[in-house]
Amino acid sequence: MSAQTVMTLEALQALVEEILDKAGASPRAAGAVARTIVAGERDGCAAHGLYRIEGCLRTIKAGKVDPRAEPSLADDGSAILRVEAKGGFSGPAFELGAPVLAARARELGLAALVLNDCTHFSALWPEVEVLTDMGLAALALCPSYAVVAPSGGIRPLLGTNPLAFGWPRRGGPPYVFDFATSAAARGEVELRRRAGEPLPEGWALDSGGAPTTDPEKALEGAMLPFGGHKGSALATMIELLAGSMIGDRTSAEALEHLGATNLAPQHGELILAFDPERFAAGRPGDPFARAEILFEAILGQGARLPSQRRFTVRARTLAEGVRLSAQETERLERMRRLGLDALG
Amino acid sequence: MSAQTVMTLEALQALVEEILDKAGASPRAAGAVARTIVAGERDGCAAHGLYRIEGCLRTIKAGKVDPRAEPSLADDGSAILRVEAKGGFSGPAFELGAPVLAARARELGLAALVLNDCTHFSALWPEVEVLTDMGLAALALCPSYAVVAPSGGIRPLLGTNPLAFGWPRRGGPPYVFDFATSAAARGEVELRRRAGEPLPEGWALDSGGAPTTDPEKALEGAMLPFGGHKGSALATMIELLAGSMIGDRTSAEALEHLGATNLAPQHGELILAFDPERFAAGRPGDPFARAEILFEAILGQGARLPSQRRFTVRARTLAEGVRLSAQETERLERMRRLGLDALG
Repeated sequence: MSAQTVMTLEALQALVEEILDKAGASPRAAGAVARTIVAGERDGCAAHGLYRIEGCLRTIKAGKVDPRAEPSLADDGSAILRVEAKGGFSGPAFELGAPVLAARARELGLAALVLNDCTHFSALWPEVEVLTDMGLAALALCPSYAVVAPSGGIRPLLGTNPLAFGWPRRGGPPYVFDFATSAAARGEVELRRRAGEPLPEGWALDSGGAPTTDPEKALEGAMLPFGGHKGSALATMIELLAGSMIGDRTSAEALEHLGATNLAPQHGELILAFDPERFAAGRPGDPFARAEILFEAILGQGARLPSQRRFTVRARTLAEGVRLSAQETERLERMRRLGLDALG
Repeated sequence: MSAQTVMTLEALQALVEEILDKAGASPRAAGAVARTIVAGERDGCAAHGLYRIEGCLRTIKAGKVDPRAEPSLADDGSAILRVEAKGGFSGPAFELGAPVLAARARELGLAALVLNDCTHFSALWPEVEVLTDMGLAALALCPSYAVVAPSGGIRPLLGTNPLAFGWPRRGGPPYVFDFATSAAARGEVELRRRAGEPLPEGWALDSGGAPTTDPEKALEGAMLPFGGHKGSALATMIELLAGSMIGDRTSAEALEHLGATNLAPQHGELILAFDPERFAAGRPGDPFARAEILFEAILGQGARLPSQRRFTVRARTLAEGVRLSAQETERLERMRRLGLDALG
């Protein structure tokens, strides 16, 4: 058994910031991007944890993201707040907008944060949880790049277009889900390709538009939406609201701009924040207490709440720190020393 | 071949209003409810057309809706508008709030309309289309009554919880979808029961919580959400946003209040309206023109847009009127003469 290193989350945050700094990121960007990556690692989401650092570095090296871009907030006093990320990462743009979004949602009951021109690589739940931590419900949507065919179609057009929702719970982690509107994430297809395993039916089409269970053919063809025409409709709604409506790229445009599916795409994002206390004002009952009755009824019949596994891992890493293999530690150390040159 | 009557939509609207008036509805309620029912019939949605009149009358007769309730609007200048339906139908409540919602969405960019304590029997697309007709994008959600088990669960808890979305298109019908977050509508299970046909896998559980394809057992048990845990998460989000958050009944509470599944349930509804021109302001391109590129790409690969069948039927009935069988005409005439006594 190889040696393991245990790191506190604070130490890991500092290390990832140092790596991003060495790769050319501004302090603001390094802090925000590192927070997202460390949150993924903390929650045991391998696909959104330390693994993502290399993707960030690759995207910086390809010149597809400006790691020193200074996001700017536009606020006309309406229910729409806009942060121009100016080709930087989404993290610093979100962090600039989130407190203003929360204040506006408290003031008006409901508000929207638009992020424009940002490079997006992370899950949406870290953002949603920033808002639930402030007592707000939140809905976040964004396109990605065109790898999914619409239901009844034959070619990639839609993105894996995630949708995340959060509801604050007192005295515990929030109710949070965050899922792709595709039948599976592209990474899951890649994993099956490497393992030589077939895909389940309904995941993908080959390049001719015919259903396939061959991962290789699926990667050359198109993914399918989850839940047939309903998932396809949701994915289309996300293109419209978080693409066309906010004056930013659709998934087709993001892929065209990027020219590759191994770099982080650039597009916009839409986050809605709701103040439940404003929405429930004057009505019987406390909205948070009433929601608990629903959660108890779900759990009481043996079903699970989404993100339960994440919260279990989180409790453990918060207490014990994160365990890194010797290989992981070495790779991080190499990136810390060499920055973009670590990509070889 | 039996005799058919052809009626213009205007004549049908007047007839349905007369029936509702005879059943005790106020002019405001009769007009609004009739508009929804005639819209369903106009678009060839049998399940939401004239067929619904008897359900409305049954619900009035059971004392579960107040057909003379006068909805009232509360407006504190924020992004939340609230209409108390006071136990009346949702239609008149929506019609009272919709113009104010549209004006607020134009002013703030984004606004929400909450309907409380309303009896809901209609599809959500008629409401969404009122907003798209005013150039706004709209999202509408509501619980129903507990007939759906959460993913991984065994008992009814969630409703069929519909979600509808609309996006305005210039010079043509809007992009609109409206679907239940259950695998199928309860009516579809009932139809298969009558036809003696089994259900597809994944639609339902029996009363012991085991998967079943027997419609009889499914009606005694629970429906399942569409798309597995993702559909279940969406249905839960709808309970939270359009139930707990707006201080109104969840699907479990609506069923408890109603005590039956053959009457229209009473709960709330949440409608969000977005002004795309406000969201796109200062960004490159026109949001509506950009959305058309997406629609063309969907259609260009042989996929369909949701609601296309409805819009085709609509174009025909707008030109030719609605055809009623002798039996339908007789039933409508009987209700017009007898009001609630027509229920026997």
